[in-house]
Amino acid sequence: MGTPRGPDDVSHEPESVESGTRRGRRPGDRYIRIVRSSELPTPRSTTEFVVADLTRPTSGLGRLYHRLRLFVIGQPLQTSQAIHERLTKVKALAVLSSDALSSTAYATEEILLILVLAGTLAYHDILPIGIGIAALLAIVVFSYRQTIHAYPQGGGSYIVTKDNLGTLPSLVAAAALMTDYTLTVAVSISAGVAAITSAAPATQAYRVEIAAAAILVVTLVNLRGIRESGSIFAVPTYLFIGGMVILLALGYTSWLGIGLHPHPVQTAVPSVVQPLTLFLILRAFASGCTALTGVEAISDGVPAFQEPQADNAAKTLLWMGTILGIIFLGVTVLTYHFHLVPNANETIVSQLARSVVGKTPFYYYIQAATAGILLLAANTSFSDFPRLGFFLARDKFLPHQFMYRGDRLAYSTGIVVLGLISGTLVVIFKASVSALIPLYAVGVFVAFTLSQASMTYRWWKKEPRGHRRTTGMTINGLGAVTTGIVALVIIATKFLTGAWIVLIIVPVAVWQLRKIHSHYEKVSHQLYVPPEHLEKQLPPGTGPTAVIVPIDTINRASLVAIEYARQISADVLVVHVADEREDAEDLQRRWERSGLQLPLTIIESPYRELVGPLVRYIEQVQELKPDRLLTVVLPEFVPAHLYQIPLHNQTAWRLRTALWTHSGIAVTSVPYRLLD
Amino acid sequence: MGTPRGPDDVSHEPESVESGTRRGRRPGDRYIRIVRSSELPTPRSTTEFVVADLTRPTSGLGRLYHRLRLFVIGQPLQTSQAIHERLTKVKALAVLSSDALSSTAYATEEILLILVLAGTLAYHDILPIGIGIAALLAIVVFSYRQTIHAYPQGGGSYIVTKDNLGTLPSLVAAAALMTDYTLTVAVSISAGVAAITSAAPATQAYRVEIAAAAILVVTLVNLRGIRESGSIFAVPTYLFIGGMVILLALGYTSWLGIGLHPHPVQTAVPSVVQPLTLFLILRAFASGCTALTGVEAISDGVPAFQEPQADNAAKTLLWMGTILGIIFLGVTVLTYHFHLVPNANETIVSQLARSVVGKTPFYYYIQAATAGILLLAANTSFSDFPRLGFFLARDKFLPHQFMYRGDRLAYSTGIVVLGLISGTLVVIFKASVSALIPLYAVGVFVAFTLSQASMTYRWWKKEPRGHRRTTGMTINGLGAVTTGIVALVIIATKFLTGAWIVLIIVPVAVWQLRKIHSHYEKVSHQLYVPPEHLEKQLPPGTGPTAVIVPIDTINRASLVAIEYARQISADVLVVHVADEREDAEDLQRRWERSGLQLPLTIIESPYRELVGPLVRYIEQVQELKPDRLLTVVLPEFVPAHLYQIPLHNQTAWRLRTALWTHSGIAVTSVPYRLLD
Repeated sequence: MGTPRGPDDVSHEPESVESGTRRGRRPGDRYIRIVRSSELPTPRSTTEFVVADLTRPTSGLGRLYHRLRLFVIGQPLQTSQAIHERLTKVKALAVLSSDALSSTAYATEEILLILVLAGTLAYHDILPIGIGIAALLAIVVFSYRQTIHAYPQGGGSYIVTKDNLGTLPSLVAAAALMTDYTLTVAVSISAGVAAITSAAPATQAYRVEIAAAAILVVTLVNLRGIRESGSIFAVPTYLFIGGMVILLALGYTSWLGIGLHPHPVQTAVPSVVQPLTLFLILRAFASGCTALTGVEAISDGVPAFQEPQADNAAKTLLWMGTILGIIFLGVTVLTYHFHLVPNANETIVSQLARSVVGKTPFYYYIQAATAGILLLAANTSFSDFPRLGFFLARDKFLPHQFMYRGDRLAYSTGIVVLGLISGTLVVIFKASVSALIPLYAVGVFVAFTLSQASMTYRWWKKEPRGHRRTTGMTINGLGAVTTGIVALVIIATKFLTGAWIVLIIVPVAVWQLRKIHSHYEKVSHQLYVPPEHLEKQLPPGTGPTAVIVPIDTINRASLVAIEYARQISADVLVVHVADEREDAEDLQRRWERSGLQLPLTIIESPYRELVGPLVRYIEQVQELKPDRLLTVVLPEFVPAHLYQIPLHNQTAWRLRTALWTHSGIAVTSVPYRLLD
Repeated sequence: MGTPRGPDDVSHEPESVESGTRRGRRPGDRYIRIVRSSELPTPRSTTEFVVADLTRPTSGLGRLYHRLRLFVIGQPLQTSQAIHERLTKVKALAVLSSDALSSTAYATEEILLILVLAGTLAYHDILPIGIGIAALLAIVVFSYRQTIHAYPQGGGSYIVTKDNLGTLPSLVAAAALMTDYTLTVAVSISAGVAAITSAAPATQAYRVEIAAAAILVVTLVNLRGIRESGSIFAVPTYLFIGGMVILLALGYTSWLGIGLHPHPVQTAVPSVVQPLTLFLILRAFASGCTALTGVEAISDGVPAFQEPQADNAAKTLLWMGTILGIIFLGVTVLTYHFHLVPNANETIVSQLARSVVGKTPFYYYIQAATAGILLLAANTSFSDFPRLGFFLARDKFLPHQFMYRGDRLAYSTGIVVLGLISGTLVVIFKASVSALIPLYAVGVFVAFTLSQASMTYRWWKKEPRGHRRTTGMTINGLGAVTTGIVALVIIATKFLTGAWIVLIIVPVAVWQLRKIHSHYEKVSHQLYVPPEHLEKQLPPGTGPTAVIVPIDTINRASLVAIEYARQISADVLVVHVADEREDAEDLQRRWERSGLQLPLTIIESPYRELVGPLVRYIEQVQELKPDRLLTVVLPEFVPAHLYQIPLHNQTAWRLRTALWTHSGIAVTSVPYRLLD
């Protein structure tokens, strides 16, 4: 629709007057009907519905931006298409579990990194720690299955806590989760890069660049919308599960003396630097608890499932827990069997694969699949973080923008914010998993605890006494107590190495969320108007406006502005700020010769300031006319080319900025189009 | 003037109506008199002069900014005070010669760096090269003395060339000079840092940081105004001159066997990597020509001298040439005598001082003085670049901003731009003098040539035949031919190592300058209005405006905007874009109950786009009313605190941006002040 159309062209289109539902219209149809308000018989309250004109932008830059967005983000989806963006169990497992499953790639290693501080003696403690974590996983999975059934509309910790324990605890859960979602992206991406550098040491120097690029790709993929993400992410998740199961099978059969003859990787055990204390064992356990991060993703994402949502989600959660448990315990026990020792240049999974199958193509397959699931595990957070952001924005704890859905129905703001923060984290921590781990998991376990405590309270309050209530309370109560203890253990053992950062961020974030909420509440109170008879309740101070037109000289642009001012008001003041007396007198002569029937005020500015004197002048006019809204009319140049912008309008821009904080002053830009 | 005043308070002040000159008024006096235009008997062309109200900003942020500026930049100066900002010869020598004099700190070294490529055999060629450069200096100095007398209002190459050879050559001179001024800053600062790192090798790692900080300091000092710079810079310049004269005296007397017994620094001569060709000797000569950069500064800066300006400037130039020649030749010959060899970690001047006096306090004095004059030599460019920028802006070849003088009468824009570009250069070239040198001096010699050729032409054209004309033409002609040949030598010998960059930048800059000029010329042609009877020549298309008010919901802010729209026009359209049908119907019900006698158009946006549909709607209204200027009235929130800005107004801001390139659409922000 690049060519201009006359009014007839519009009003003759029959569909342009229809009203009612218009689902499924094709983009490009034109169906705006415009009513000339002057044609209306008498002014009255009327409402007219039109559907947005979807023609593409007509300006060159607009078209370029549009095409770029089409290429990067994809064809826009209608709001009515949202219902179809649902995941099958198979896809949901891939999309929502990649975080949880991928943690098997580093959890065992993080346990060992702590244990080897006490030397070989401590090595066998990995088995009880691993079993303890697996038991914890089982408790958490069964607890969350109850949450899914209780909250089929999505039972993230924020919602569940808010529903049962109130606002403040729910904000703590929200802040803790947002911190951890961000860390999930940073840790997963960093661990994925570690898998790549283990297999190809030459890439070691580009760790940070690879990680940053990966975050960019995941961000863009998510802006394209969740269903496509599902398709993209299903493949690597299943490749990883398959690969790990085969690797473990090969490992364990060789242990039984069947099949391969493994050659365990030999690494020198570092010398003992710490005695084997209970604290050290707890610290190793706390590091291993990162295996549980991401388990809550499924209960958070119930609405993304196909119907019956709750049943499908609960089944998927059980499947995920089982797979996660098998792989984590399998890797841990086999690592113990081969006596593998962590080393800065090669991950434990890489060592394990090399021990079992050597540097065969299958070894590279395992590394690639690990890198794949890890790089993509970040994706779980890209579903969860924006969804939590939406809930918080809906409840007015975050800016409105977190509620807007982009072209592809994804919550673009949350996605972009997450990408930016996690990208910054990766750069600051130089894509090092060990540096990030101490910050990690604190938030998740705080949220676990609050969520399970809420569920326990809910059973007690809503369910009648009986077997059902006892079972429910027992499961969630056990979950709450266990995850609560683990949270304390994590905070205590990792406090000095990094958990303190989270313990500062979470309260600050809660304070900030409350502050935003209180602001929006106050604004909404100020803006409230009673629904009826608004004509009689019009706000004061909007009588006929007085107009001030600051001009630079007498030319076509300032004449257009002056004429506009005269059209909207009988009370027009033209004003000029002069640096030099001579220029001022020259303008005075021109003004008097011009025949314009308006007074001109010239402000001499001995210090060559322009905006300051103008603002003071406007303020003084405002003091003289306190009952009026004042209008400042600024002639503004519209250059023919964007690169000409720096050559014009600086004064208009600065004046607008200076006037922005003055209430009661409307600022109007009157454009003057430059031809070249 | 924080408290509001009534009209009486203003109009009773007797001085508020006086007109005529008001030089010397103290800031803080209040002398705006406001005429209520409604009080005027009949509209007529009147002009009223007032002097700017100089009260300080009343908002918290405004006051903070004001105080910060006062601290960094200093108390503002009135335009009428400009006349006093003049330099004595002694100060002018310091301010305008630091660039030229400081080049003695690296010129000898740059010659040697090239010569030693051919080994010890080539070493003695430094003497003829040094003498050649000194002779060239004498020619240039005598040529420029004639320029000073011919152009006592300031004879920069741009002005002289423009006056005699026309616009295009003058733009070439201007572009060449601007390039070189920028390089002067980068080279001087880098060489100054090299003097520091020679004496204190531990600082080597912070080269770039020290250089960047130095540029920042010089920029700020220049924003404070030139006279204060003079006082600050006089000291290091004279400390350097004194120190070098003493060092040379000690060196030469020891050569004669009197006084000290020097211990020349021994450095291994690097192996021969190139044969001793004429090209190599010319390249060494070209590198040494950097000694001449900055010589033109004095003729450029004649207006900064006290009266009689031309005589004072000519005398100062002669003094500067003499001092420069003595120090440069003195260092070069003594370097030859001691057989010093360049080395990456220590400058030649440092080696020389160490050879003569050892690591005594005097050695450190020399290093400090060298660093001082070098770091401050950059200051010459901070006088010249903004002045050239002013001339170019006055002639409409650069944006207007280059003409504005800041609080302290300095051309702030030029100063800030120079600081930014040279800072970037220092970072890119890692503060390495040797890396920057190949780009350097090309521009200066191009400008020399054009300037001297212009002077030659001027003698021939303006002066009657006779002895005076012959002498004048001979001196300037010799200058033009010599500097022209040197310019070609520099380009030829340094082409591959960096001069090509300058040969790209200069034509691009000339093209850009011409482009800006042609834009301003076209604009001024478009904006022209004949001086008389403007009432009858008012521009078309500014009849009574139709108004569109986009609203989000019905609240106080949108009511204020709607009421404003009704005050300025009888033709008001209210429009709302709805994502969800339900919200739209809810708004419709509220609108119909409200009793507002205005039609509301609701645009359904199935793709949740907000700005696009609004813009298309506005465009279509505009097509229906092609003879009118349309006004879009945007309700805009004015938050109580700046940090609340991200919580509001995104839509208003985006809509304004989207409408900006549409001509014929005035955009009005109607503020609604939020209380908290």
